[in-house]
Amino acid sequence: MNPLTIYKIISYLLLIISAFMLIPAAIALYIEEHQCLQAFIIAISIACINFIAMYIITKDNKNNSLSLKDGFLFVTLSWVFASLLGALPFYISGSIPSFTDSYFETMSGFTTTGASILTNIEGLPASMLFWRSLTHWLGGMGIVVLTVAVLPLLGIGGMQLIKAEAPGPTVDKITPKIAETAKILWMIYTGLTIAETLLLMLGGMTLFDALTHTFATLATGGFSTKNTSIAYYNSTYIDWVITTFMVLAGINFSLHFRFLSGKFKFLLKDSEFKAYIAIFISAVLIIAINIYGTHYKTLSDSFRYAGFQAASILTTTGFATADYESWPALSQAVLFILMFIGGCAGSTGGGIKVIRIITLLKQALNEMKYLLHPKGVFTLRINREPVKKDIIYAISGFFFLYIFMLLATTFISSSSGVDIITSFTSALATVGNIGPGFGLVGPSENFAFFKDYVKWFFSFAMLTGRLELYTVLIIFTRSFWKL
Amino acid sequence: MNPLTIYKIISYLLLIISAFMLIPAAIALYIEEHQCLQAFIIAISIACINFIAMYIITKDNKNNSLSLKDGFLFVTLSWVFASLLGALPFYISGSIPSFTDSYFETMSGFTTTGASILTNIEGLPASMLFWRSLTHWLGGMGIVVLTVAVLPLLGIGGMQLIKAEAPGPTVDKITPKIAETAKILWMIYTGLTIAETLLLMLGGMTLFDALTHTFATLATGGFSTKNTSIAYYNSTYIDWVITTFMVLAGINFSLHFRFLSGKFKFLLKDSEFKAYIAIFISAVLIIAINIYGTHYKTLSDSFRYAGFQAASILTTTGFATADYESWPALSQAVLFILMFIGGCAGSTGGGIKVIRIITLLKQALNEMKYLLHPKGVFTLRINREPVKKDIIYAISGFFFLYIFMLLATTFISSSSGVDIITSFTSALATVGNIGPGFGLVGPSENFAFFKDYVKWFFSFAMLTGRLELYTVLIIFTRSFWKL
Repeated sequence: MNPLTIYKIISYLLLIISAFMLIPAAIALYIEEHQCLQAFIIAISIACINFIAMYIITKDNKNNSLSLKDGFLFVTLSWVFASLLGALPFYISGSIPSFTDSYFETMSGFTTTGASILTNIEGLPASMLFWRSLTHWLGGMGIVVLTVAVLPLLGIGGMQLIKAEAPGPTVDKITPKIAETAKILWMIYTGLTIAETLLLMLGGMTLFDALTHTFATLATGGFSTKNTSIAYYNSTYIDWVITTFMVLAGINFSLHFRFLSGKFKFLLKDSEFKAYIAIFISAVLIIAINIYGTHYKTLSDSFRYAGFQAASILTTTGFATADYESWPALSQAVLFILMFIGGCAGSTGGGIKVIRIITLLKQALNEMKYLLHPKGVFTLRINREPVKKDIIYAISGFFFLYIFMLLATTFISSSSGVDIITSFTSALATVGNIGPGFGLVGPSENFAFFKDYVKWFFSFAMLTGRLELYTVLIIFTRSFWKL
Repeated sequence: MNPLTIYKIISYLLLIISAFMLIPAAIALYIEEHQCLQAFIIAISIACINFIAMYIITKDNKNNSLSLKDGFLFVTLSWVFASLLGALPFYISGSIPSFTDSYFETMSGFTTTGASILTNIEGLPASMLFWRSLTHWLGGMGIVVLTVAVLPLLGIGGMQLIKAEAPGPTVDKITPKIAETAKILWMIYTGLTIAETLLLMLGGMTLFDALTHTFATLATGGFSTKNTSIAYYNSTYIDWVITTFMVLAGINFSLHFRFLSGKFKFLLKDSEFKAYIAIFISAVLIIAINIYGTHYKTLSDSFRYAGFQAASILTTTGFATADYESWPALSQAVLFILMFIGGCAGSTGGGIKVIRIITLLKQALNEMKYLLHPKGVFTLRINREPVKKDIIYAISGFFFLYIFMLLATTFISSSSGVDIITSFTSALATVGNIGPGFGLVGPSENFAFFKDYVKWFFSFAMLTGRLELYTVLIIFTRSFWKL
C-alpha cells in the first residue's frame, strides 16, 4: 500500500472541493451572512493548510503508483474526507449545531441520498443551503466519473457491464484516457445543469432556487431548499421539468454522450435503458390509475403526481410533491418495489440498478432452462452480447450483499426503537441513496430524531450503497489487510 | 410428456391422503359430528371414485416413464390436487363456508405454512381441527421426502448441496432406492411424533391436543387448535418442549438419521447445522436481553418467550406464545430478519434456508477476494468440500427469484388495500411458509380479511415457496412448453 500517495490525491480532492466552497462563501459575503462566511473561510483554510502540509510531507515521495488496494481505499476515503471537510461549514457556523448531524447531512449530500436531519430547512442561511445542494452536484458528478471510468476497471459488482454493454464504440473507448472520459462526462453534466436551470427559471424560480434544485435533480439527490420540497412551487410545469430531468439523470451517462453524438439507435438497442423506461412507465400507469378519482380529480393531475413520485423514487432522487404515504396501498407498494430497483448503472442514481435486475432475471430464467436441459448450454446475453460468467457471479454477490446490508441497517435502525417499517425503509432509503422511506422517514418526515450512533451507521450505509458495496466492504475483510 | 402417468401417481397420492382422512372420520363418528363425518365420507369417496376412474382410463397405458418435465408437473400438481381434496371436508361440512377459504387453509396446511383464515379456531369441530393439523403432518413429511430424496436429483436451486454437503455416506447412499430413503425418513418422523406427543401429554395436554400440536410442530406448520395458539397452555414446560421440537424439525432430516446411527461428529462438522444453531442462539440472546425488564420480570421468562418466538419464526413454524408486535423494536427486527432465513434444507422448515445463506455469504466474500486478486482461484467450500459453480449459480438464481416473489406477492397483497408492512410481511409469511407476519397479519391476527383473489395468490405463493420456487415457476416459462 501507498498511504502517502492516497493522502496526496485526497488532499488534491479536498482542495478542489474547497474551491467550490468559494461560491457559497461569495453568496455569504454578498448577503452578509457573516458567520457563514467565516465558516467557509475556515474550512477552505483547513483544506489549504492540509494541502501545503501534504506537499511538504510527500515532497520526497517518488513512488506515485497505486495498487488495487490503494484504489479501494482511495475511493472510500475520498467520500469520507470530503464529507468531513464538507460538514465543517455547517458545524462551524452553527447552522447545524451537532457535528453528527453536520456529517450525516454532508454524507447524504455527497452520496446524493438526500436524507436530511433538518427539521426546518428554510431556517438555514442561504449560503449554507447552496452549499448543501452543491454537495449533491459534486457527489453526483463524482459518482458518474467513478462508475463509468474507474469502477469498471476495478471490476466491481458487474460494473464491467457498462463497458461490455453496447457493441461498437464503448465508453472506455470514447477516448483512451480516463481524464478525457471524465471531461466529456463533466461537459454533459454541465450542459444538463444549464438546461434545467434555465427551464426552471422559465417556470418562475429564482436563479438560486433553480440552481439548487437542478443540483439536486441531476445528482438524483433530493435536497430541496424548501420545507415542503417541490410541492412548495405547486406548478405543473416545474413538476414536469423536474420529472423529466430526474429520469434523464437516472440514465447511464454514456448513453447521453452517444445520444449527443447522434447515435440515437443505441438508445433503442440498450436493454437497460429500455427496461428502465418500461419500469418507469408501468409504475406511473399503475399509480396514476390507482390515485385517480380517490386522490386527484383530473387524470392529468394523477399523472403529474404519479410521474413525479415514481421518477423521484426509481431514480433515487427523493424529491416530493405529494405525501405518498396518504396514497392507496397499491401505489405505496409500487413505490416500495421501485426502492429495490434504482437507476441505471453509470447514472447518478443509486439502488441495485436496472442492469443488475435484468441480468439476475435472465440468469434465473437460464437456470430454469438448465433444469430442463441439464446438458444444454445457455448463454446469458445483454444487448445481444454474451455476458461472462464471472460478471454474473459478481452481480449475484452484489445482490446478496445488498439485501444483507439492508437487513443489517434495519437491525441498527430498529435498535433505536423505531418500528419495522421505519427501520426497514430507512435502510432502503440510505443503502439505496434514495432519501425518504415510509413510516417515520416518509416523504414529509426527516432523519432528525435518530440517535447519534444510528446516524453514523446511516452515513456508513449511504457510503457503502453509493460505492457499490464492494468498494467499502472489502476494506473490512481479512484478505484486504493480508500482505 | 406423459399426462396419464402423472394422473395415475396423483390418484395414488389422493387415495393415500383419503386413507388418512379415515382418522378424523373416526373421530367424527365417535364424537358424533355427523356433518363432518358425512363430509369426510364424501371426500374419501371422491378419491376412491377417481382412483377407479384412473384405473380404467390408464389400464391400457403401458408407458409409465416420467420425463424431467413430468417430474416438475407431478410435484406441483400433487400439492395442488392434495389441497383440493383436503379442502373438501372443510367446505362440504360447512365448517369453512367459503371454498376459497377452505382451499387457502388446506394449502396453508399442506405447505406447512400455518397462515389461517379462521377467526375462531376453537369453533371448528374437533374432527376438522384434527384434519387441519394432519395436513401439516402429511405435508411436512411430503416435503422432507421430496427435498431429501427427489429434488436433489432434479438439481433445484442448489438442493444438490444436501447430497454434497457431508463427506462419507451421503443421503442418497443411505440406501440405493428413493423408496428406502423415504421409509427411513418416515420412521424418524414417526419417532419424533411419538416422542413429542408423549412429552406434551406429560405436560398435561390431552392426547388430541398433544397430537395436533405435534403435527404442527414437526411439520414447522403452526396451526394450533386454540385461538391463542400455545399461549393458551401458559406452561413453561410445554413451551420448552415445543421450542425444542421446533428446532429439531428445522434440522436437515438426514442429520437426524446420522445422529440416530451414532454418528455424532457429523453434527459438529456440518456447516449448516452449526450456522442454524448459532443464528438461533444469537437471536434468542438479543431478544431475551431486549425484552428482559421491560416485558418480562425474570430472565427465565425472557428466555422462554424469546426462545419460543425465535424458534417459531426461524423454523417457519408460526406458533405464538406472545404478541411479538408489542415487543421492543429491536426484537421485532430480529424476528423480521429471521423471516429471511428459514430452516435447514431437507427439514420441514421453509424460507430461503440456512445453507443457501451460508453459500451466498461465502460467495460474496469470495468475490471480494477476486477483486483483490483477479487472477486468483478461490474455491467455495461447504463442510470442507468444494461446491461446484453451477450449484452456486442455482442458489444465486434462487435468491433473486425469492426476493422477486416477495415483491410480486407484496404487490398483489397491497392491491387489496393493506399497508406496506402488512403486504410485505404477508409475502414473507406465505412465500417463506412461516404463517404470521407483522401488522394486520401479526401473530394474534389472521388472513381472513383478505379478498378472495389475494387468498388465491397467497395459495400460489405458499406452494411456490414450499416447492423451492423453481419447481412451480418453471411451469410458467416458455421453455417448459416448448417441445
